[in-house]
Amino acid sequence: VHMSDVSLASLELGPYSHFMQKEIHEQPRAISDTIEALIDDGAFRSELFGTSASAIFQQIDSVLILAAGTSYYAGLTAKYWLESIAKIPTSVEIASEYRYRDSVPNPKQLVVTISQSGETLDTMEALKHAQKLGHPFSLAICNVQESAIPRASSLIFYTRAGAEIGVASTKAFTTQLIALFVLSVTLAKERGLLAPEQEQAYLTDLRQLTSSVQIALNLEPQIREWAARFGDKEHALFLGRGVHFPIAMEGALKLKEISYIHAEAYPAGELKHGPLALVDSNMPVVVIAPNDALLEKVKSNMQEVKARGGELFVFADADSHFNASEGVHVIRTPRHVGVLSPILHVIPVQLLAYHAALLKGTDVDKPRNLAKSVTVE
Amino acid sequence: VHMSDVSLASLELGPYSHFMQKEIHEQPRAISDTIEALIDDGAFRSELFGTSASAIFQQIDSVLILAAGTSYYAGLTAKYWLESIAKIPTSVEIASEYRYRDSVPNPKQLVVTISQSGETLDTMEALKHAQKLGHPFSLAICNVQESAIPRASSLIFYTRAGAEIGVASTKAFTTQLIALFVLSVTLAKERGLLAPEQEQAYLTDLRQLTSSVQIALNLEPQIREWAARFGDKEHALFLGRGVHFPIAMEGALKLKEISYIHAEAYPAGELKHGPLALVDSNMPVVVIAPNDALLEKVKSNMQEVKARGGELFVFADADSHFNASEGVHVIRTPRHVGVLSPILHVIPVQLLAYHAALLKGTDVDKPRNLAKSVTVE
Repeated sequence: VHMSDVSLASLELGPYSHFMQKEIHEQPRAISDTIEALIDDGAFRSELFGTSASAIFQQIDSVLILAAGTSYYAGLTAKYWLESIAKIPTSVEIASEYRYRDSVPNPKQLVVTISQSGETLDTMEALKHAQKLGHPFSLAICNVQESAIPRASSLIFYTRAGAEIGVASTKAFTTQLIALFVLSVTLAKERGLLAPEQEQAYLTDLRQLTSSVQIALNLEPQIREWAARFGDKEHALFLGRGVHFPIAMEGALKLKEISYIHAEAYPAGELKHGPLALVDSNMPVVVIAPNDALLEKVKSNMQEVKARGGELFVFADADSHFNASEGVHVIRTPRHVGVLSPILHVIPVQLLAYHAALLKGTDVDKPRNLAKSVTVE
Repeated sequence: VHMSDVSLASLELGPYSHFMQKEIHEQPRAISDTIEALIDDGAFRSELFGTSASAIFQQIDSVLILAAGTSYYAGLTAKYWLESIAKIPTSVEIASEYRYRDSVPNPKQLVVTISQSGETLDTMEALKHAQKLGHPFSLAICNVQESAIPRASSLIFYTRAGAEIGVASTKAFTTQLIALFVLSVTLAKERGLLAPEQEQAYLTDLRQLTSSVQIALNLEPQIREWAARFGDKEHALFLGRGVHFPIAMEGALKLKEISYIHAEAYPAGELKHGPLALVDSNMPVVVIAPNDALLEKVKSNMQEVKARGGELFVFADADSHFNASEGVHVIRTPRHVGVLSPILHVIPVQLLAYHAALLKGTDVDKPRNLAKSVTVE
């Protein structure tokens, strides 16, 4: 469905109060639609990215991801998958930065652009800039058929999120992550790094993902209770580590965009290098950490700010042994479905932003100053 | 001078109120001490990095910079220089993230660590991790002689900032930038990419830098006036583009660390992808932009938030034609000394953070919760 063909009035909200809430809840379906062809095949096939994909994937030695906003965070997440699963060096760059700086082009690098609309101006211009520098290989990950960026790319993967109306991207983001995960595994296979058992294990992970996402959505009542504690806040800090750091960034961005709470993300290890000075009772700290080891470190960092009322809100998975205590709130997320954990853990932070925005009384689907597709500089 | 040999009480503050202010004003001397050997030689020589530097520089095909906090921002600045001057692909990574993720090691990559103290735990562990993965070549940029990180590295460049007492790093940062610039030009020379005229032009830039930094320091009264407008603020946004984006990040970090104002940096082009929703009269926007083209774009982005009282504070260089208007304050920085511009433009943001902190009445030299050298996780 092309955005311009969609009449807002004609779309049903159903039981939902806003398109954003509806789109958050559409994620199990959006994800299963996006992986449908893959599941039907029972294998990761390069052809999903285009007929010339296999030939191109055989020639590349690295990946350069160009994107903006939420799509950029999808790219940052993908770097972890591409380097750990496909062992291919990956750079991720903000499109508006890349197009204006001197870079070192590498014709063996696959340029991956990510844009929900396929029309994001900076991303389109960044792709043109890369092509002018001599990059022959490009892949567009996009939600809108026949839009400008895929038309200018050698390879295409269309996410099947359906029309996204809320300005704050949700189902487009999770389906972009699916596309990037599929890319990582497919590249691993092309590079001879994927054992058949591992391929089947990844397929199983993907098949189980939709039900895990549904379980995460069922946390909404608990998350709404947490959101009540954000209603009078003007600040928040989001912490993550590794593949969950971009999810912390996305959580902070969502809160910023729709609740106008100044939320900022940090990799957990950087807390002591500055932001710890900010933490007090006005600065709740949200931790996305399905990982006991990280949690213990964050907890020890937080000990010293407890005295000033610093509060921790932790999303920890069912396998974690991290327990709530005074000033430390814990919500158990579903089992982390292996490497797909970031897809699962973005759901609760989307819901947190949504319910905080409701309390703040903002225009959730059309936050001030922001446009759905950024087609200007 | 080793930090542990320095008795705080024995150090003279002279005419200054805090070590941080003193150290900000010591930067012309710290910079000229750091480049002294280079200027005496009248040439960029690999030997400045160690006797085996030339042999190593001939073998490398890329650079990986590992650091934390302010040193990480020095690394992000260096990426621009390394890629534009030496045409060598450069990745910059937070030490505490790198050591805990799967990466793709490349034995032809030079691993550069940056740490004022030379004892930062995460950076030391990241270096050990890289060595264990099979990285044979490492360079430490460090301010403290014979500390742990340089002792574990193949090459060393000691900055000559002198003892830094204030927790918020200032002169260590600018001299780290000097070291990284010298590395970029030296690598360009080893790679046959440096024309003799260009080498002399860079030397001239370096020679002129100290007097330009002094002119920037002389802006202190104007910056103190600006700081008065931050005394009642709890938020700030810092914008930059390209090589000045890491300077915006460093400006935001300084303000955070010592004034406890929640300042956050964004590359200017990302404003429309989220943070613009936050801007109102409580969120001043500081722009580090010695560049007319960028300024015009930021200005157009800001038009729509003017109605809600969003105020711009712009550092624009003497060659810029950008003028003050209602809600747009401008301070003219000295001529931008070519590619060394980021070194010059960090001075005013250091002063802004210092004077804002004075107004807030914080303990400038020892901000809450932060340690000078982060020797724990």
